[in-house]
Amino acid sequence: MIVSSRKAVVLLSGGLDSATAAAIAQSEGFEICALSFSYGQRHVIELEASKRVAAQLGIAHHVIVPIDLRVFGGSALTSDIAVPKDRSPEAMGAKEIPVTYVPARNTIFLSFALAYAEVLGAADIFIGVNALDYSGYPDCRPEYISAFEKMANLATKTGVEGTLHTKIHTPLISLTKAEIIKRGIELELDYGQTISCYDPSVEAKACGHCDSCQLRHKGFVESGFPDPTKYVAGQN
Amino acid sequence: MIVSSRKAVVLLSGGLDSATAAAIAQSEGFEICALSFSYGQRHVIELEASKRVAAQLGIAHHVIVPIDLRVFGGSALTSDIAVPKDRSPEAMGAKEIPVTYVPARNTIFLSFALAYAEVLGAADIFIGVNALDYSGYPDCRPEYISAFEKMANLATKTGVEGTLHTKIHTPLISLTKAEIIKRGIELELDYGQTISCYDPSVEAKACGHCDSCQLRHKGFVESGFPDPTKYVAGQN
Repeated sequence: MIVSSRKAVVLLSGGLDSATAAAIAQSEGFEICALSFSYGQRHVIELEASKRVAAQLGIAHHVIVPIDLRVFGGSALTSDIAVPKDRSPEAMGAKEIPVTYVPARNTIFLSFALAYAEVLGAADIFIGVNALDYSGYPDCRPEYISAFEKMANLATKTGVEGTLHTKIHTPLISLTKAEIIKRGIELELDYGQTISCYDPSVEAKACGHCDSCQLRHKGFVESGFPDPTKYVAGQN
Repeated sequence: MIVSSRKAVVLLSGGLDSATAAAIAQSEGFEICALSFSYGQRHVIELEASKRVAAQLGIAHHVIVPIDLRVFGGSALTSDIAVPKDRSPEAMGAKEIPVTYVPARNTIFLSFALAYAEVLGAADIFIGVNALDYSGYPDCRPEYISAFEKMANLATKTGVEGTLHTKIHTPLISLTKAEIIKRGIELELDYGQTISCYDPSVEAKACGHCDSCQLRHKGFVESGFPDPTKYVAGQN
């Protein structure tokens, strides 16, 4: 039996990683307060997935914050820049940061999580970033997360008063995509409810060709579990 | 003659401090891209002041981002909690953080500034925080700003690529309110266009009794310059 007494804010996008992070937080005994963003993303349909994941996990508190990152533009996810398709593993693993990078996105998301946590009196924030099978975004790396945590504890009333020490949990940061999937399946997560695609169809089917689709599919193949994703072209 | 070639993002609330920070940024040769927030603040009328200040300084780029911090609540500035009035200087100087503190507000504002700066290719962000004549907010202290700057340089594409080093400028951080006012008047800033009150009337008149009004009025008295603020009760 899991005794839930501590609240944790979990950033929940509706994708595979954040759903797994939420399931892990719950397995550690946290009562989850989920936070999602309607930020002008091309793949806004992921918000429906975030609601399905919240329902699946029985999460009672789910706040969707509207913030319009299109006012700045600068990313394929929030503007008319095309989402790259069928990039090679070498290209995805290269040092260059792709056009799907949204400037300061995780910093903005974690800042809102920090505000929410402070209001709840919660010390714990979960984010499903991953430094292995990822797209090379700077704000997914351990050194970034560590710097954010230090800043957070200087930013807040509770941090300064010493009543709460904010911890940014990154349970997926050193896992491969296949390991993430195995962990989620152990926790009985239904990945068919999640959507990872950067450029889904209006029926919420995944394109199968963007970086996110490719990394996800490769993860399922390597995990040995069937890929439950609905693809436009019936890839799986 | 000021040669403007470098862009800087300036957080502009419409109050005395941020207007002075903007004027200082301009005097240092920066081309200002101002950033304001409609965040559900009780004193939303300050946004009109931010537009007047932008006009006064001839700022061509002014983005107002709607973000609704009322979804979290937890502050007298974004909920129905009453704004404290007529607190003594001792109470305002005490270690306790007042109810007008908005959880993680400067972290959220600086995160958006970071996103905007990255899209602009700007390395410089100005914020009018002040660690002397202030209300005891944790996210106004030099150690907080320094931690944010470190995090910012790990967060962004330009920081990681080493093409830009983000600097958070806090030109007011060690000035008294009177010194801030003197500096602004040297720079020909019209403080009559600014509004600092946390609880202004519908006619945009200042209450004269909240912490912000008291600190502002004391600053004018100590600076020797007349206080141009329009108060509800004709305080000046």
